[in-house]
Amino acid sequence: MAVAVKALFFDVFGTLVDWRTSIAREAKAMLEPQGYKLDWLAFADAWRGEYQGAMDEVRSGRIAFCKLDVLHRRNLELVLPRFGIDKLSEEDRCTLNLAWHRLDAWPDVPPGMHRLKRRYMLAPVSNGNISLMVDLARRNDIPWDAILGSEIAGDYKPKPRVYLAAAEALDLPPRECMMVAAHTKDLMAAAALGLRTGHIARPNEHGPGRGEKGPKEPVDVAGESLEDLAGKLGT
Amino acid sequence: MAVAVKALFFDVFGTLVDWRTSIAREAKAMLEPQGYKLDWLAFADAWRGEYQGAMDEVRSGRIAFCKLDVLHRRNLELVLPRFGIDKLSEEDRCTLNLAWHRLDAWPDVPPGMHRLKRRYMLAPVSNGNISLMVDLARRNDIPWDAILGSEIAGDYKPKPRVYLAAAEALDLPPRECMMVAAHTKDLMAAAALGLRTGHIARPNEHGPGRGEKGPKEPVDVAGESLEDLAGKLGT
Repeated sequence: MAVAVKALFFDVFGTLVDWRTSIAREAKAMLEPQGYKLDWLAFADAWRGEYQGAMDEVRSGRIAFCKLDVLHRRNLELVLPRFGIDKLSEEDRCTLNLAWHRLDAWPDVPPGMHRLKRRYMLAPVSNGNISLMVDLARRNDIPWDAILGSEIAGDYKPKPRVYLAAAEALDLPPRECMMVAAHTKDLMAAAALGLRTGHIARPNEHGPGRGEKGPKEPVDVAGESLEDLAGKLGT
Repeated sequence: MAVAVKALFFDVFGTLVDWRTSIAREAKAMLEPQGYKLDWLAFADAWRGEYQGAMDEVRSGRIAFCKLDVLHRRNLELVLPRFGIDKLSEEDRCTLNLAWHRLDAWPDVPPGMHRLKRRYMLAPVSNGNISLMVDLARRNDIPWDAILGSEIAGDYKPKPRVYLAAAEALDLPPRECMMVAAHTKDLMAAAALGLRTGHIARPNEHGPGRGEKGPKEPVDVAGESLEDLAGKLGT
């Protein structure tokens, strides 16, 4: 690349953390002792299935920006009745909603991040809120330099403001920033604004064989894992 | 303390980094080769001397919020002519202005921070901008969980919004957050909003014997250094 990249911006859900099996585990731990028996992975998929629609309410301006935790709770209330869960206490609903703060990283993430940290500034540019990003980083040993993304931008990806606010926060032109994600759409939104793009394969994000094995459009660099990307970026 | 503290918020200039000798060093490195001979510590003091006045323009609403880097540049332009510096190029002015990104931490800071990190969430709640905080952290090995402070609040301490925005970002009530600073005024502003207070002695911040040896008002905890504070906070 002619211009050196100085900062790497990361998508988090799916790219760095395995939301699907983690949410299934957290839901089972909360609900099974209360006598609920259900397909826990289907529950995770259903909860995640409301994700884009909730953010569309904000992106369109129909509702004001609020943290993703608030949207996750709205989505939880939509999904619980579909699975016949009607006797969950308010306290348990709050605890279950914070399952998104207890997701596990894919195994290549901590070592890959520590390699990348030597040369690059690292920040999430996620739709998750700051506290959620902090909790995931502490749980999974991710050495962020700063937490950027939706909460500092006041909007949700793929709206341009989210990517541009992140570059501005680090005083960098977009061409010195690379968006890293397992989702081609996220990368194309960043590329349209001048950011570089790095794709990470997560072929099992939505279950075995149901995830992006590689980029669907041209990107600057593509890796099989974060460690593979770290090597290709010279670290 | 009856309620457990979960996050520590840090003042940075003076509390964690020795701005005075670092700015003197940076100014000398830039200006001496160009033939300027001056009292470098006096130059640092003069530049810092414009700090509160510049932020008052924002706090009062006379000018819109801008990053501290912008205020530092405004202040540099005020101070250079006083020292007879009239032939500095635009490029050199930009480089000199970023001297604030190259400050050295007091020696107790890296080990103290790594101890505190085990138990507490750590964030700067500084008037410095995000990129400045990131550069200081990378230079001095400070393991922040997030960068909070003026840039996410859109105002400058000791305005209440800055402390409250930091607590909100971590989803914590003020009583679960402790402001840590070498300046009693900063701590009293935080205490008025319900935050806990931790004082660090920096008796030489403004030169030998010219800094706070201890808190001037009652605080929750006071330390001779960050390592001393880490011990008193059980880490």
